[in-house]
Amino acid sequence: MSRANTRVVMRRHPNGMVTEADFAIEHGTAPEPAEGQALVQVKYLSLDPYMRPMMDPVRSYVPHLNPGQLMPGATIAEVVETRDPGLPVGTTVACALGWQEYGLVSAADVRIVDPEAGPISAALSVLGMPGVTAHYGLLELTEPKAGETVVVTAASGAVGSVVGQLAKLKGARVVGIAGGPEKCAYVVGELGFDSCIDYRSATFEEQLAEATPDYVDVLFENVGGPIFDAVLGRVNDHARVALCGNISQYNADEPYGLKGVRQLLMHRVTVHAFVIADHRGYWPRALPELSGWLADGSIRYREDVASGLVDAPKAFIGMLTGLNFGKQLVEVSAD
Amino acid sequence: MSRANTRVVMRRHPNGMVTEADFAIEHGTAPEPAEGQALVQVKYLSLDPYMRPMMDPVRSYVPHLNPGQLMPGATIAEVVETRDPGLPVGTTVACALGWQEYGLVSAADVRIVDPEAGPISAALSVLGMPGVTAHYGLLELTEPKAGETVVVTAASGAVGSVVGQLAKLKGARVVGIAGGPEKCAYVVGELGFDSCIDYRSATFEEQLAEATPDYVDVLFENVGGPIFDAVLGRVNDHARVALCGNISQYNADEPYGLKGVRQLLMHRVTVHAFVIADHRGYWPRALPELSGWLADGSIRYREDVASGLVDAPKAFIGMLTGLNFGKQLVEVSAD
Repeated sequence: MSRANTRVVMRRHPNGMVTEADFAIEHGTAPEPAEGQALVQVKYLSLDPYMRPMMDPVRSYVPHLNPGQLMPGATIAEVVETRDPGLPVGTTVACALGWQEYGLVSAADVRIVDPEAGPISAALSVLGMPGVTAHYGLLELTEPKAGETVVVTAASGAVGSVVGQLAKLKGARVVGIAGGPEKCAYVVGELGFDSCIDYRSATFEEQLAEATPDYVDVLFENVGGPIFDAVLGRVNDHARVALCGNISQYNADEPYGLKGVRQLLMHRVTVHAFVIADHRGYWPRALPELSGWLADGSIRYREDVASGLVDAPKAFIGMLTGLNFGKQLVEVSAD
Repeated sequence: MSRANTRVVMRRHPNGMVTEADFAIEHGTAPEPAEGQALVQVKYLSLDPYMRPMMDPVRSYVPHLNPGQLMPGATIAEVVETRDPGLPVGTTVACALGWQEYGLVSAADVRIVDPEAGPISAALSVLGMPGVTAHYGLLELTEPKAGETVVVTAASGAVGSVVGQLAKLKGARVVGIAGGPEKCAYVVGELGFDSCIDYRSATFEEQLAEATPDYVDVLFENVGGPIFDAVLGRVNDHARVALCGNISQYNADEPYGLKGVRQLLMHRVTVHAFVIADHRGYWPRALPELSGWLADGSIRYREDVASGLVDAPKAFIGMLTGLNFGKQLVEVSAD
């Protein structure tokens, strides 16, 4: 049985702001599984900021994409044909098939997801890469102590929302930064941050100063640009920065020039840039904790789900400009 | 016996580039020692870049200077009157008397210097704060391994010259960055760096690329500004930066905007900003090693000695603009 397989590829390297014209939709046929493989149908695709820098032809931690290549990404998928006894038909798996409807996997490539344990899409957010990123970056790299002030940028996002909730669990005072009053209300009201500041507000810097009367001990930085500088203007001696993302700059024609080097030096700040892909061994440490906190209600999350791969480029661009509200997913095939 | 005491104070906060008019020379009288104190005559004053940011009225790790205050600084001095049995007349001490000819100390404030062990001024360079800074920043924070590439900015300076020589002792490939062909020749020919690049050269970036064919694992950063960005353009995955100084920016009207945040993230760099004043307990670990390496010829150093306190402002300004060649000292009183 031959199945139609829609795929989204990078048509060309973006020039500054990524546009829908930088992508192409391709219609092909799903491959046949070889011995030891299973054909899976993708249910959910995760859209994440890291995909944007991969589209630029620069030296980085993974080879960059070339025109015509499939857009990468984490996925939740279901086995529909199998020649791998470890993956019976109907099994739900977390895997990395990218922006396509069907793909081949082996048992070694996947993490099996228990659909009884909760929404399967959580394996792409709080129980997936964003959750493990938050756990590692905050708890391993910055080690917030009770009573310290932690600032989290992109606070309503997939990573930031978990970071802030973990920091609250550790007893820190947590200040979020997000775009717009709706997101800020969610960050305080639903996620339990102590406060949240709208970076679009004309009085952003004043509000930041008010929200950090004891200055800032930890910054979990997802955004970069002038927001990064604003927080560096408030750092305490020996502050720690987990540098996780730079989303404000991914589509910039010219990179923002960070003025706060003096602040780093004057306050003897340590900056830990990291990507969770370097720390595969950490997942088994983080996931049981995150699952427990999710189950007991200590961690909440929110999803923003686009429908169908054809809309993935638009949803991706929306995420990069802050239009999403919660973890951006694409429902690739409905149940 | 009343002794004339010349002192140099900060007359006003500098506005951008510091000028001689930002200082004032005051003529007073040396104080009298109380019980448990000694009056010392300053032989050498150390001029160091950190003094410049202290002149700006901003929040920092030490209270900033206010107009009329004595300029601070490390000194080598000799006891000329004493009411402290631990400090007999004639004892040579390292202390922090600032820009003046005479001052009071107690045994607890000073480190006794043995004039038989070598030039007493070394206690202000390789066997003093700059040497301990180099030792801590390089060996504790960046831990260079044999075969790695270490880049050192302000390579002929008091800190940089020691950093590069320590990195060579650890088996690293060491690339210096300095201002002008004379300093570069010294850095390679006398200090034994593998290469040294003149940042004033029109082909600086090309030369940096040629000198770092395996990219950069460690950056010991004293300079900041565009040079920092240039090196960030060459970092390896998991590079470490010891952020020790930002001398290119201390007199700037507007801080340079660092473009390399993307490089930090893409290559998962760790940046350790530090000042050695936070690590008093480290001196006894570093000094015996540095003394040994100095004695056996593994470490060399060079001094640039101005004559008389009245010339200290000019020498200080010269150091901040790279006119000095070696550790900048002021001979306050000749033997």
